[in-house]
Amino acid sequence: MNLILLFESDFIGADRVILTGRRLMHMTEVHKVKPGDALRVGIVNGLVGTGTILSMDSTKCEMEVVFTDEPPQPLPCTLLLALPRPKVLRRLIECVAAMGVKKVYIMETWRVEKSYWESPFLSEKVLHEHCVLGLEQASDTVMPEIILQRRFKPFVEDEIPAIITTSRAFVAHPAAANLCPYKIGEPVSLAIGPEGGFIPFEIDLLKSKGFLEVTTGKRTLRVEHIVPAILGRMF
Amino acid sequence: MNLILLFESDFIGADRVILTGRRLMHMTEVHKVKPGDALRVGIVNGLVGTGTILSMDSTKCEMEVVFTDEPPQPLPCTLLLALPRPKVLRRLIECVAAMGVKKVYIMETWRVEKSYWESPFLSEKVLHEHCVLGLEQASDTVMPEIILQRRFKPFVEDEIPAIITTSRAFVAHPAAANLCPYKIGEPVSLAIGPEGGFIPFEIDLLKSKGFLEVTTGKRTLRVEHIVPAILGRMF
Repeated sequence: MNLILLFESDFIGADRVILTGRRLMHMTEVHKVKPGDALRVGIVNGLVGTGTILSMDSTKCEMEVVFTDEPPQPLPCTLLLALPRPKVLRRLIECVAAMGVKKVYIMETWRVEKSYWESPFLSEKVLHEHCVLGLEQASDTVMPEIILQRRFKPFVEDEIPAIITTSRAFVAHPAAANLCPYKIGEPVSLAIGPEGGFIPFEIDLLKSKGFLEVTTGKRTLRVEHIVPAILGRMF
Repeated sequence: MNLILLFESDFIGADRVILTGRRLMHMTEVHKVKPGDALRVGIVNGLVGTGTILSMDSTKCEMEVVFTDEPPQPLPCTLLLALPRPKVLRRLIECVAAMGVKKVYIMETWRVEKSYWESPFLSEKVLHEHCVLGLEQASDTVMPEIILQRRFKPFVEDEIPAIITTSRAFVAHPAAANLCPYKIGEPVSLAIGPEGGFIPFEIDLLKSKGFLEVTTGKRTLRVEHIVPAILGRMF
């Protein structure tokens, strides 16, 4: 937690917040702070700044907060992600939130296990919690938007053209002929398949909408490794 | 498992192996194979090829194997990694094995929790298992070498100069002035700090040995995300 993310409900005045629960515990056990100490704070979808501890006990902490700086720049990347194993999804959401992705579509594809869609990890609450962890890690405040898409074909045919319109669109595919570009310097839409990959029909449909197949090499990587690897390479 | 990694003890003849346990279970439950089917196999530290199933039951599978191709190229990267939380280390070893790193030093640094060194996850057996999972994912056969270094200063002073001698040496540091380079095209030694980072003394010592501090931007990432992000960017 390199920044404490604050929500409207934390405020008891214009420049006063009360923190409890997970954030208080982290401040006590990891930051080991005491009254007078200052920590980096940020207001959700707003500025970052400094929180100075006025008082704290085992149940709550009161801070005076001042907001001074813009959060870090977002990555100009929209991620189109085949739903991975829910346990992996949680870690991945934290990763992409930390790396600065602000829009993630989670898609059904042929090889996505249907049962994954029933997981409680796909609830808005759990996804939100993992976005918060990612933002706190990266000292960011801007919540990513996560959209679930249960039907691949209508999504690609009817919605993706508008989503990718002002970006370069890539689909990661280990067998692709084109090497994934580096330091791309413009907005990107990036589609990542499930374990086992997209099926040929899906790749062809994405290509027909303007996606370029790219690979990082002969090594097929897990989704939780290929996503940071490609984001680190492109941005 | 995109390749079944074979060891000397699996062989019952020059081109015959018997598989049991985890690999058999994976073949049955994930690949859903039957006699006559062929799978990609590889011999540890050797060639990759094809295994054809001769017979199988619930306890074992006999395959005829033929080895034809070189494994994928290794990454020309030596990783110098401050010991992370052991649970994270396991996943990270799988990641770097899959990405093709062949030498990993796991180091003590000031901010490494001393208790981490007592973890059973640091045993040769567990590290080996996670290397195998990474190689199977990436269809590689060449085992990474993992070396534990409990004393930072003598390691950096006495051993690192010889380790980095034919490479460009970088230390990842969020506050660095230099942006981490892309597509580097030559051997690299890459030092990654613990949660909370290297302390100034450690950074200075590494710099005095020829390391360049680099950053991927303002966002401080977790070690399990920064490692694939930098490897994806450099190679």
